[in-house]
Amino acid sequence: MKENRVKKVIDKMKEENLDQILVSAPSSLFYLTGKWFHPGNRMIVLLIKSNGDHKLINNKLFPVNEDLGVDIVWYEDTDNPTEVLSKYIDNTSNLGIDKTWPSHYLIELMELNAAKEYKNSSVIIDELRMIKDAEEIEFMKEASKINDKTMKELWGHLKEGMTELECVDLLKELYEKNGSNKFSFSPIIAFCPNGADPHHETDDTRLKIGDSIVIDIGCVYNDYCSDMTRTVFFGKVPSNKHESIYSIVKEANERAIEAVKPGVKFSDIDKAAREYITENGYGEYFTHRTGHCIGIDCHDFGDVSGVNDKVLEPGMIFSVEPGVYLKDDFGVRIEDLVLVTKDGHEVLNCVSKEVTVIK
Amino acid sequence: MKENRVKKVIDKMKEENLDQILVSAPSSLFYLTGKWFHPGNRMIVLLIKSNGDHKLINNKLFPVNEDLGVDIVWYEDTDNPTEVLSKYIDNTSNLGIDKTWPSHYLIELMELNAAKEYKNSSVIIDELRMIKDAEEIEFMKEASKINDKTMKELWGHLKEGMTELECVDLLKELYEKNGSNKFSFSPIIAFCPNGADPHHETDDTRLKIGDSIVIDIGCVYNDYCSDMTRTVFFGKVPSNKHESIYSIVKEANERAIEAVKPGVKFSDIDKAAREYITENGYGEYFTHRTGHCIGIDCHDFGDVSGVNDKVLEPGMIFSVEPGVYLKDDFGVRIEDLVLVTKDGHEVLNCVSKEVTVIK
Repeated sequence: MKENRVKKVIDKMKEENLDQILVSAPSSLFYLTGKWFHPGNRMIVLLIKSNGDHKLINNKLFPVNEDLGVDIVWYEDTDNPTEVLSKYIDNTSNLGIDKTWPSHYLIELMELNAAKEYKNSSVIIDELRMIKDAEEIEFMKEASKINDKTMKELWGHLKEGMTELECVDLLKELYEKNGSNKFSFSPIIAFCPNGADPHHETDDTRLKIGDSIVIDIGCVYNDYCSDMTRTVFFGKVPSNKHESIYSIVKEANERAIEAVKPGVKFSDIDKAAREYITENGYGEYFTHRTGHCIGIDCHDFGDVSGVNDKVLEPGMIFSVEPGVYLKDDFGVRIEDLVLVTKDGHEVLNCVSKEVTVIK
Repeated sequence: MKENRVKKVIDKMKEENLDQILVSAPSSLFYLTGKWFHPGNRMIVLLIKSNGDHKLINNKLFPVNEDLGVDIVWYEDTDNPTEVLSKYIDNTSNLGIDKTWPSHYLIELMELNAAKEYKNSSVIIDELRMIKDAEEIEFMKEASKINDKTMKELWGHLKEGMTELECVDLLKELYEKNGSNKFSFSPIIAFCPNGADPHHETDDTRLKIGDSIVIDIGCVYNDYCSDMTRTVFFGKVPSNKHESIYSIVKEANERAIEAVKPGVKFSDIDKAAREYITENGYGEYFTHRTGHCIGIDCHDFGDVSGVNDKVLEPGMIFSVEPGVYLKDDFGVRIEDLVLVTKDGHEVLNCVSKEVTVIK
């Protein structure tokens, strides 16, 4: 167990009047124990008690060879894991639950009267995870360095007639060559007009001269994620309309980044990007939040959105990714990762954002 | 909406005294609507009402271009989707919840007093999904045909010094050539002694002469899964001990398959495999259930285990995959998919189970 992190969790539990919480998200288990668990549809949970009597409830199919510094309660496939777990829960006290824990476990705990009431306690660990320590920042910088290098190399390999999926295969090879063997999310490579769908599922569309290309990619390095988007033009300079929209999105990205410093709110960052796009007439085509926190998960807790009034603190890392999407025409998104520093910010990506035409 | 399936869901809801249920699992949404949704950490749910007034609550980021035959209630990233949803739930009546729905939504519904009580209603759709119709059976036979062909081709490509991960890359290419572009699960290719961990994470271990190899692979065809395991020996005939264990597992696989017919229980199938392995002295090394149902999900609802006394019906398809695992030595697992027919069963895989030495 990472004792300093567990200690902070317990401090926070006390503030929230919770004496017991369940941690189930694999990324949070990794954050607290240093070990990855992949339980599939089986149950693995860490019960954290404010009195220090923590238990890891684990299926015998997932052996633990190292000493994790926590009592492990083993169960078998023929046991009911919720019943096993409930024996360690104080039923006179509230219980914190991890937000993504499958509902059927919670319903079973309720049927067993395992606790007094049930609260969503994810925010306790999620908020700790928002603030990266020095080692985490180092890993994330390296992940973004690999992402920068790979983006530029990918540009050099684009050829007329390639499919989006072939680009993804190529991307995988480039990441491996550059030191990462894992995507941080399923890459989005969208040839115009596929770029008009911000969540386009990469398919076998072929690249044509004159296409714009939205490239939204990221990789994992030492368990930490990168995530960046560039929109480039293939074989031809963009039309005046496309170039003008590109410039609006780029300026929105830069204004939002410029606003990043301790003490401002996430919603201020969103506002900086959104207001500029709206003033320029494309507000209704910027259909998503401006960004998301990132770390062990590509989508860590914390959105850069109009409804998040949480205040920025040094050590936070999030994406700034405004976009404009014109159905059946094209889309532009420009995304960087930004670290909040003591005095302001540091951008983790360095790939050019100037209008780029790939020849 | 697949109206015949929705009608069966409503019949079943009435039996369970539920007038409203939420369907959230992407595979169940696909089963009922014919469309895949990939909401990530956003909310997409189908509220099914016994009175027919169904609603699909969907985020504007996931446009639906076709007519799904159901009212869609759209929300935006700045809305609270649980509040939007709660307006359509009758708070004087119980509400069924899908088993894997993230707990935070359920906790929010409880805080909004959205329904009377909350029940795990997944079994309603899960049990329907257990019985495959003619088209589903056709797709699953084709998926297993591709799996058979690919397994045999993979054997032909194995070479001394290859890593497990290289085998996975090769496997991907072979599946694509054979008509599937998707794994049904992360393939397990485990060179002895890695095979002694039934959930081994494929790594960069290199293949050596004399290794046994556990190959547990599956692909997706028309949204339906295949899943098969063979254990083969590389470059050398196995030792007497290894061959004898192999024969025990093979006989257990065959005995379990032989027992498959309508009217017997899942637990009987498990027993047929487990008793034979136990009689031969390796019971404690057969550490998992004998199999699982399979369909749109590789792990569909329904285990072939000692605690599942549900009775087999025609149209069910599940895996039969006994194994023996000797730590630091080797493992054997032999797995086929089996379809329950009117009179007995049909095995969907045809790759040889005789002791196979790859030269």
